[in-house]
Amino acid sequence: MQETSKRHLCKGKTIGFVPTMGVLHAGHLSLIKRAKSENDIVVVSIFVNPLQFGPGEDFGRYPRDVENDMEKLRAADADILLLPEDKNLYPDGFASHITVEGISDRLCGAFRPGHFTGVVTVVCKLFNIVKPTRAYFGQKDFQQTVVINRLAVDLNMDIEVVTCQTVRESDGLAMSSRNAYLSAGERAAANVLYKALSRASEMIKAGACGPEEVKNKLTALLGEGPLVSDIQYAGIYDPETLVELDEFRQQNLVAAAIKIGGTRLIDNVLASGKAGRG
Amino acid sequence: MQETSKRHLCKGKTIGFVPTMGVLHAGHLSLIKRAKSENDIVVVSIFVNPLQFGPGEDFGRYPRDVENDMEKLRAADADILLLPEDKNLYPDGFASHITVEGISDRLCGAFRPGHFTGVVTVVCKLFNIVKPTRAYFGQKDFQQTVVINRLAVDLNMDIEVVTCQTVRESDGLAMSSRNAYLSAGERAAANVLYKALSRASEMIKAGACGPEEVKNKLTALLGEGPLVSDIQYAGIYDPETLVELDEFRQQNLVAAAIKIGGTRLIDNVLASGKAGRG
Repeated sequence: MQETSKRHLCKGKTIGFVPTMGVLHAGHLSLIKRAKSENDIVVVSIFVNPLQFGPGEDFGRYPRDVENDMEKLRAADADILLLPEDKNLYPDGFASHITVEGISDRLCGAFRPGHFTGVVTVVCKLFNIVKPTRAYFGQKDFQQTVVINRLAVDLNMDIEVVTCQTVRESDGLAMSSRNAYLSAGERAAANVLYKALSRASEMIKAGACGPEEVKNKLTALLGEGPLVSDIQYAGIYDPETLVELDEFRQQNLVAAAIKIGGTRLIDNVLASGKAGRG
Repeated sequence: MQETSKRHLCKGKTIGFVPTMGVLHAGHLSLIKRAKSENDIVVVSIFVNPLQFGPGEDFGRYPRDVENDMEKLRAADADILLLPEDKNLYPDGFASHITVEGISDRLCGAFRPGHFTGVVTVVCKLFNIVKPTRAYFGQKDFQQTVVINRLAVDLNMDIEVVTCQTVRESDGLAMSSRNAYLSAGERAAANVLYKALSRASEMIKAGACGPEEVKNKLTALLGEGPLVSDIQYAGIYDPETLVELDEFRQQNLVAAAIKIGGTRLIDNVLASGKAGRG
């Protein structure tokens, strides 16, 4: 892969990279489409990264369907599929870990210790293997995009990190491989997340007094959702530092993580506050 | 720098990289000479990396002499000098750190917590900036070479890490910028380190029973040295894992860190044991 990439780059070609954990859905395909439109070569990786799953998380049962994914990649006209195995990326003696401090500890990081260390370590490895000009990530995993942006800047990686709009089902539920865990009843209930985030965003745009008022409404809406078994976090955050806001900024991140039954779902929207309309 | 390197690499040229903290001595110049002989372009960096100094260590008083260094680099026919400033490498918001676990915690790592995290983080950054084909490090900092090798392999960095023989003064003292801290009396006393390591190495080659016997002799020799104020570690280690050995291997690392007055000195030699002569 490294030799292939060097050959393309030296011919003046650009490489767009879409790292995934497979079970490709319309969200992934939109990243590939965007990468196709902006680069000469598109590389997609499929790797369910053990390093980013905590003990007791769903590494073992995370869905995998490489045959089907390959069909989708052919149809999407992706150029190269990188399909590493665990032992290729983490051979005996592997000992290196990258931590992006601060922003990794907030939001999802507070509930998934070590998760972002696992993410940035594998992303750094994949970046070094693929040598992309640009790499594409979905806004659904907003914190991931912030952390990977920081990684690329901090380590002088010379790669443009591109964040793409979340792709949603018709009822607003953000596309995610983990939606497959939902029963039919849970699936119907899951749209409370986007509905509540959208309502919160509208309140900000309509001139709500401050984040606390919006957070209370957001939390209440999520709490009223049928089958919502846990609200891990819900609030208004600075989109750069991910610190919870006590007054609105120009851009405000409205984000939440909830459980519907046993399935953890996250989502977010960006909302321009009064400061942004001044 | 990144654009320059890409241009050279795409023309099929190789890049040899010698990262330093400046105050160049014959040890550095031997690395540059080796890099010159094996590559088309040689890049040398001078950067006293704050991240690898602990609180109370000698970051502030570490010697700096860029004018003189530039003369030496011209004489050595180095092609490019990279001279970053702190704020270029660590701008506001910098938050990423790389840790190589296990091997970073032993030997010097046990006495300089965070040191190797600082080393590998800056080396990773410099590697991404310079994009070298090969990078050159002195054997004097043996643990550093092991940790950087691991970093390059673990993060798929596609760079050959070359370890070069330690260059010594006529009495055996390993070249080091920190030797400048020694008073005349301390300088005369400092050769105890290499003498004791050499004696230990000879014992191994001559068929000593085991590491314990050699370690005891090494420690005794160092302890008898005038002006030796501390022996931080002294012993026989596995050159790959840096774990202390209880029986000889094919290759054995004989290493020690001592203080002469207030100055910390490290050195090491590799010794083939019986297993290596079988």
